[in-house]
Amino acid sequence: MEPATFQPVQIRWGSEQRSLVILDQTRLPEAVVERQLSTLEEIEEAIVSLRVRGAPLIGVAAAMGVAALANQRPAPTAQVESWCDRLEATRPTAVNLHWALDRMRGVARRSEEPGLAAALTVEADRILQSDRAICRQIGENALTLLRDGATVVTHCNAGALATAGIGTALAPVYLAHAQGWRLRVFVDETRPLLQGSRLTAWELLRAGIDVTVITDGMAAALIAGQRPDAVLVGADRIAANGDVANKIGTYGVALAAARHSVPFYVLAPASTIDPRTATGAQIPIEYRASDEIRRGFGRLTTPEQAGVWNPAFDVTPAELVTAIVTEAAICRPPLAPCLARAARAGTG
Amino acid sequence: MEPATFQPVQIRWGSEQRSLVILDQTRLPEAVVERQLSTLEEIEEAIVSLRVRGAPLIGVAAAMGVAALANQRPAPTAQVESWCDRLEATRPTAVNLHWALDRMRGVARRSEEPGLAAALTVEADRILQSDRAICRQIGENALTLLRDGATVVTHCNAGALATAGIGTALAPVYLAHAQGWRLRVFVDETRPLLQGSRLTAWELLRAGIDVTVITDGMAAALIAGQRPDAVLVGADRIAANGDVANKIGTYGVALAAARHSVPFYVLAPASTIDPRTATGAQIPIEYRASDEIRRGFGRLTTPEQAGVWNPAFDVTPAELVTAIVTEAAICRPPLAPCLARAARAGTG
Repeated sequence: MEPATFQPVQIRWGSEQRSLVILDQTRLPEAVVERQLSTLEEIEEAIVSLRVRGAPLIGVAAAMGVAALANQRPAPTAQVESWCDRLEATRPTAVNLHWALDRMRGVARRSEEPGLAAALTVEADRILQSDRAICRQIGENALTLLRDGATVVTHCNAGALATAGIGTALAPVYLAHAQGWRLRVFVDETRPLLQGSRLTAWELLRAGIDVTVITDGMAAALIAGQRPDAVLVGADRIAANGDVANKIGTYGVALAAARHSVPFYVLAPASTIDPRTATGAQIPIEYRASDEIRRGFGRLTTPEQAGVWNPAFDVTPAELVTAIVTEAAICRPPLAPCLARAARAGTG
Repeated sequence: MEPATFQPVQIRWGSEQRSLVILDQTRLPEAVVERQLSTLEEIEEAIVSLRVRGAPLIGVAAAMGVAALANQRPAPTAQVESWCDRLEATRPTAVNLHWALDRMRGVARRSEEPGLAAALTVEADRILQSDRAICRQIGENALTLLRDGATVVTHCNAGALATAGIGTALAPVYLAHAQGWRLRVFVDETRPLLQGSRLTAWELLRAGIDVTVITDGMAAALIAGQRPDAVLVGADRIAANGDVANKIGTYGVALAAARHSVPFYVLAPASTIDPRTATGAQIPIEYRASDEIRRGFGRLTTPEQAGVWNPAFDVTPAELVTAIVTEAAICRPPLAPCLARAARAGTG
């Protein structure tokens, strides 16, 4: 039932687990290009420049990266921890990266050479396999919220390309499609980097799912005019109170959904819940380079002298969220106690 | 006090008023290119392909175009009316185009050769000059809603480049700047055609005004985080009840403004008010070609096989509008009676 085409595509081990191989997401949809990452610098660069992206997938990639480095030459625990620190600094908002590297640090502290590299590899592989299982379980939980014939709206890419499996927000879409339901998916292109039009549209089309791309500014008119059945988005970090950090633009979609009584569902691994972050106000927001907006397509689309404001994420307040679906549960308001339980179940 | 650099730039007569010369807005900000329009086909193409755009300016351009054609060779009234019909069909949403061409049709019906061409030229010039005066009056009316040091958000381009004068939504910004106020303007880039980042940023920078570009999806986060003093937008058509058709994406900005109690002001000539359109539901929405989204930057940013939905406008319901500012008045809720008075004053 899993769309097999996606399984090996977005991330896999290189030869002898001494490297990892990613699908270079910056090249889609124009070209399908794999890229082998062997050095710390290559892994950092791939994460920073979004060749590999999506909150769950960068956690997986970082863990596999640490293991791959350890498989190349014996390294003491301190060295492994410094790799983890370097990789953790690549993206500040997604908590999965922190969570995955914390697991790798824990292994490094508990193990010694010989055997450390093998232990790190086992742990990274566990994170990889577990991410696949989590995606499927999120999909099964969320499938109960949809129906045959549904129209859904999604933002950015919380699909297979954001995970090691069938995605988070798109997981129920894949499962629904696999069981013969007809779904229609509208996807915001998601400026500045167009993860929606470039990535989500690409992966849904590959799976044979009906997809229509809109610009981000069209989401409110679409929701008002077409009354979709649901909005499905992922999350980069979920605060203890249910505030959700996700790709910039999510908040505006949530406002439109609330206005028109369209359910707004957040689908994410329980590891995305950060019990130490009380509310969205405490979530650090990554700001990215002006040229992503100013010349994101190789052309000058904004005058050189104009200022540019480029936050990568926004925060949707908990009161706009209809439900948060993790592998552990479907949490509806009041979100906080349910999220606390899900976080314990997810990381336990 | 008027920023002189803008006066002749966006539109002017060609030699002997037998053509019109426009600034080709599709080339900005990379190149400042004027284009002379001498034939009906050139004028149509320039409007359809948005070389000249902005609801007031396309009304002016169409009127000048009709006069220019009449100045080239003697034409009977029926011929002039057929030019008006052809030009009116270029863009369905903006009511100013209809309004300006109705004025030209009226002249054609009242005048005869010899003298028809001269009468059409006088009327087109009157529309041109009147648009400039209207912009200034809108600016003076709206200036009372701002303050020195204000931060405002705007969407698309309702500036000098959308009119023959100093713009509609941006008119108070120019007047404020001219009297020494410091304003900060955030502008949505306005996908798919980037009228915000390409045009609004360009013209504000030229005038020395502090401008910061954001993507459309950032507007809600910006409004939530920075609590600007006002949102200023233009309009392509205002229904009798105060519903406002404007560039796609406006509705989402209005939702965010309402959520955070930021005043949402619509600034437009009284000719934008269409008393024959009862509510926004009756406003025809123009749908444009998929490639504006799919390959708008010369690169394939959406897979060829994906669907694309590309409405050029959306409708913001009257209840989200704090005030509608025309040259005649500042209308606050209840909007309908004030708009009816403004429409009569504006076209009288």
